[in-house]
Amino acid sequence: MLYIPFVISIISLFFVYYLIVWIKKCDTGTEKMQEIFQAIKKGASAFLKRQYKTIGIMAIVLALIFLGVYGLRGNWIYGLQLTGAFLFGAFCSALSGLIGMWIAVRSNIKTASAAQTSFSKALTIALRGGAVSGIAIVAISLIGITLLYFVYTFLGYEVARIPSLIVGFGFGASLVALFAQLGGGIYTKAADVGADLVGKIEKNIPEDDPRNPAVIADLVGDNVGDCAGRGADLFESMAAENIGAMILGVALFPHFGIRGILFPLVVGAFGLVASIIGVLVAKAKEEDQPFKALNRGYFVTSFLAAVAFYFVTDQLLGNILFFYAGLVGILASIAFVYITQYYTEAKYRPVQEIARASETGHATNVIAGFSVGLECTALTIITIVLALILSFKLGQMSGFSGGGIYATAVATMGMLVTAAYILAMDTFGPITDNAGGIVEMSGAPEEVRRITDKLDAAGNTTKALTKGYAMGSAALAAFLLFSAYLEEAKLEVVNLAKVEVFIGGLIGAMLIFFFSAFAIKAVGKAASRIIEEVRRQFREDSGIMAGTSKPDYAKCVDITTKAALKQMILPGLLAVLTPIIVGVLLKAEAEAGLIMVGTIVGVLLATVLNNSGAAWDNAKKYIETGKLGGKGSPAHSASITGDTVGDPFKDTAGPSLHVLVKLLGTLSLALVALFI
Amino acid sequence: MLYIPFVISIISLFFVYYLIVWIKKCDTGTEKMQEIFQAIKKGASAFLKRQYKTIGIMAIVLALIFLGVYGLRGNWIYGLQLTGAFLFGAFCSALSGLIGMWIAVRSNIKTASAAQTSFSKALTIALRGGAVSGIAIVAISLIGITLLYFVYTFLGYEVARIPSLIVGFGFGASLVALFAQLGGGIYTKAADVGADLVGKIEKNIPEDDPRNPAVIADLVGDNVGDCAGRGADLFESMAAENIGAMILGVALFPHFGIRGILFPLVVGAFGLVASIIGVLVAKAKEEDQPFKALNRGYFVTSFLAAVAFYFVTDQLLGNILFFYAGLVGILASIAFVYITQYYTEAKYRPVQEIARASETGHATNVIAGFSVGLECTALTIITIVLALILSFKLGQMSGFSGGGIYATAVATMGMLVTAAYILAMDTFGPITDNAGGIVEMSGAPEEVRRITDKLDAAGNTTKALTKGYAMGSAALAAFLLFSAYLEEAKLEVVNLAKVEVFIGGLIGAMLIFFFSAFAIKAVGKAASRIIEEVRRQFREDSGIMAGTSKPDYAKCVDITTKAALKQMILPGLLAVLTPIIVGVLLKAEAEAGLIMVGTIVGVLLATVLNNSGAAWDNAKKYIETGKLGGKGSPAHSASITGDTVGDPFKDTAGPSLHVLVKLLGTLSLALVALFI
Repeated sequence: MLYIPFVISIISLFFVYYLIVWIKKCDTGTEKMQEIFQAIKKGASAFLKRQYKTIGIMAIVLALIFLGVYGLRGNWIYGLQLTGAFLFGAFCSALSGLIGMWIAVRSNIKTASAAQTSFSKALTIALRGGAVSGIAIVAISLIGITLLYFVYTFLGYEVARIPSLIVGFGFGASLVALFAQLGGGIYTKAADVGADLVGKIEKNIPEDDPRNPAVIADLVGDNVGDCAGRGADLFESMAAENIGAMILGVALFPHFGIRGILFPLVVGAFGLVASIIGVLVAKAKEEDQPFKALNRGYFVTSFLAAVAFYFVTDQLLGNILFFYAGLVGILASIAFVYITQYYTEAKYRPVQEIARASETGHATNVIAGFSVGLECTALTIITIVLALILSFKLGQMSGFSGGGIYATAVATMGMLVTAAYILAMDTFGPITDNAGGIVEMSGAPEEVRRITDKLDAAGNTTKALTKGYAMGSAALAAFLLFSAYLEEAKLEVVNLAKVEVFIGGLIGAMLIFFFSAFAIKAVGKAASRIIEEVRRQFREDSGIMAGTSKPDYAKCVDITTKAALKQMILPGLLAVLTPIIVGVLLKAEAEAGLIMVGTIVGVLLATVLNNSGAAWDNAKKYIETGKLGGKGSPAHSASITGDTVGDPFKDTAGPSLHVLVKLLGTLSLALVALFI
Repeated sequence: MLYIPFVISIISLFFVYYLIVWIKKCDTGTEKMQEIFQAIKKGASAFLKRQYKTIGIMAIVLALIFLGVYGLRGNWIYGLQLTGAFLFGAFCSALSGLIGMWIAVRSNIKTASAAQTSFSKALTIALRGGAVSGIAIVAISLIGITLLYFVYTFLGYEVARIPSLIVGFGFGASLVALFAQLGGGIYTKAADVGADLVGKIEKNIPEDDPRNPAVIADLVGDNVGDCAGRGADLFESMAAENIGAMILGVALFPHFGIRGILFPLVVGAFGLVASIIGVLVAKAKEEDQPFKALNRGYFVTSFLAAVAFYFVTDQLLGNILFFYAGLVGILASIAFVYITQYYTEAKYRPVQEIARASETGHATNVIAGFSVGLECTALTIITIVLALILSFKLGQMSGFSGGGIYATAVATMGMLVTAAYILAMDTFGPITDNAGGIVEMSGAPEEVRRITDKLDAAGNTTKALTKGYAMGSAALAAFLLFSAYLEEAKLEVVNLAKVEVFIGGLIGAMLIFFFSAFAIKAVGKAASRIIEEVRRQFREDSGIMAGTSKPDYAKCVDITTKAALKQMILPGLLAVLTPIIVGVLLKAEAEAGLIMVGTIVGVLLATVLNNSGAAWDNAKKYIETGKLGGKGSPAHSASITGDTVGDPFKDTAGPSLHVLVKLLGTLSLALVALFI
């Protein structure tokens, strides 16, 4: 049965290869575009190379420490298994990020070039570029886990023991995801804030103006932050969900046997097929709204995934109740998308409130946006609560002991079954954003810009929606992970009334806040370097502003790279070391308190940061459409403040928190032996 | 033994009477000052009257509902006991707020008048005004509880049963405190933001300028928000701590008998004596720095309280370990004061970072301040963790079962033993603030202003410090309360691994965020009414700006009152109803999850909101001393944005969260029978 996900994933990679070849054949644009593309490519590769070197060193050091610790405890074999899986997971995650970045950089220019002749073609390229990373990431995650399964079966391990042996894979994926998201997030927002503050506000030149020295760094940021970062995030979700669900499947071994364990992999494989079909049907006519085409693909994917879910559940589990649980997950993911839409789109009350508050100044704009962020936690949490209760009750109705928790895992699978398509839509965002930038910088005619603007607007919406989805799936995956942790740590009870467990909870919650402080501050620190550099260039060479001499883009890219990498270390280490220290000192139950309260707080704070950021962004865009005075009015100036405040919220700290809550789970799962 | 706290409290009230008479005899200032005083008095009384009417109706409706519910369950007697204590607690809490407001309004003018001749006298009046409410509040809380004790003893109840019967007192106190803090907090910040935005920013007139139509509303706000609100907050802390500790004392009945139950009341009474002495020694010479005198009083109070603690512990508990636990509490309160100082005073890194970030604009100022708020959670939580662990271990060393938890209660008593003095210092802040406003508005000479400015600066520091203290004591009191709740609900275990308990935790955390959203938004909504009105007055009567005609102060006061009262209802009801609904539907253990996770998140978010607000405020003041361009520079303008954002954070949402976390505990304690 293991061959099903393996073979489907391999076939999917062939499809990815087909897409890459298709994209490569597209037109490469004007010479000017080529030049910009080369600069972006160079900057993005340089960053990723240096980032991976840093992450690689940290991963190897951590692996050696774990190996040493387990060795000292006389458990060399387990140590080797753990660190092997850990490094393999880290490698696969890094590979996923690399693919995402690689294809995004190449799709940008093709999308920009296609926009010169055809809206429909441009949209297809951008979506297919996104699909390359979406499908590749899900396929690699499935292949990684099945490969490990093959190896351990070959070594003669019992089928039901294997999930516990491959937990290191998830931890490795989490570690890389954390640093990728954090470093990329710091990079992209530092460059963005730096470029905007000096360019838009001080010099009053438009976005993506080639005179701005930080403009290439800004475009590079979209690729390394939004593409590589989100890719690593969802790779981690997939890996964590699969491994966590398999561990819970072990608990149901008496009922389902091996089928309960492999169920998540098979469902994931069919989800991949559904996503591929979704990508193929998502085409737009020349006069269509871009979002219509993307939506069509999404609904086809969801529908096919639900159908596949039904048959797989029927075949493997033979119990319709678990199909319903999966359906709860699919519905929850749709609910998250709608909630995010309500709180972040200009046509609804929250964003309009922020826009109106901008009329009374910077401060009222900030206050309004922040309270929208706080407010939207309610519906988010209610959705999570309902999804948990419903799926749990459905599972309990099956009458199997452990059925309730397993059903919550199935709901998570339902949520993640469309991940490849969602990720394609998500990466669509930065690709169109970059394409717009290239078009703007290359001085293409107004008509072309109109097309990329239309695509970019759709991209902004998909980015916000998929962030809601990523947060929701992170919440459910985290719940799944600590259910698996309790299973592995043989904990029946996490008694919050014990002082040490309560303290674990306090520290878990504190870690989330403290980590966010560093993540947000990191953007500020890195941005201030860039601001200084951009100001220096404008000051020292007046030809830049006049358009007669070219700014030193590479210098800005280099400064951003160094600053972002330097700033990611401390919060990253903090996130990894705190749960290890608490687990070792206060033991497994306190660690459970840390993970569980940390997850709750992390989900809430991530919701606040993501949605307030997106709402501020759209309030600004709403005013820019001419409302409340339009561009250049005091309200517009105030709305830019909110948008800038929201940048590190929604693109650095918020998404990093998704990764962090899962990291808490995979880390504890992998190191549980140290905490007992 | 019950006579000790009763008699000491009665004596303290005589001392309060002496202070009032002393203050009344002071000079009442110029005719102009009198006029302003009358306007403030009228506005403050009108607000408090309408606020108490609203709260009173809600309290009575709630009481009737509780009575009905218990009656339907065939438990009329318990229902009557509960609602009786509830209404009595609500009454005492309202009385405390009233006294705080009443004396503050009267001390303002005397302080302003004294500043015309003597700095030393002005300081003494302001501190003694604060002491009136500090001592009265603590004394009333002790008298209330001892009276209930007398009544129940008289009715023939067993001594060890009584604490469970008077839990309604704490709930009543919490309910009034919540609305008082929320309504007052909305009022004070809406008026402040409204006055500043139009006055300082749009019209460029100084703070407290008599031409600003909202200036009286702003001064009224200091009295109803800072004085009445904080008074109700600390009254609730005292009541909650005493009742919670007495319930835990019941668990140690085999060891300590009645002495363990009454210990908190006796300690509190001696703390009152220590505070009175502290107030009497806190005098300044003409050339002294005001803070020196206040500090002297604080250290005398702390030292005497520690000595008293030693003797009371020795006499009643006969075990030195519990004295050490109390010492841990006293040290924790000092630690909170220092941490708050570090994060909010201009001479340390955090505030300087915010000030520097202001140079790059509004957005970077906001980002820097918010991340300082997030960052300071770490030291705060570490202090709480250490205080809990140390006191718990000390208690465990006593060898009594339940000794560990009781010792954490003793640490809370240690923290709250200086409450009366702290509250005096706290109320010192708004009194000097108002005195400064009166001096400014009455056009007094430069010299007088210098004195009130000096006092006001000290007042700002004490306000921030006592907020740190209030938060720390709220955290420990909340821990105590849910320990008592577990005792009352007969819960040995709060198993976060159960789905319904985890859901309780999710909802508890969400409630904190959602409530804060409403509290912050309420300020914005109320402020926008005032902004409109102030703009209207300036527009319709150009004589106001010219200084030839008087603005309509009363209209602004009236609008603020209505808006604040309207906006406090929804968040208040949300906070009360959510835990009731969860408790009834998901039962006692899930309710425990809600309280505990809610407490953790509430403490963290309150820390973020309080400290970021204070840090923004001081960053602005730092720039106003002439640094980084000084007043009128772009950095100054950016720092005003942060300060304004921080206003609802630090004076509305943050302090309301202190009250809310305790409310969760007292509410569950009072209604535990419904959740079983």
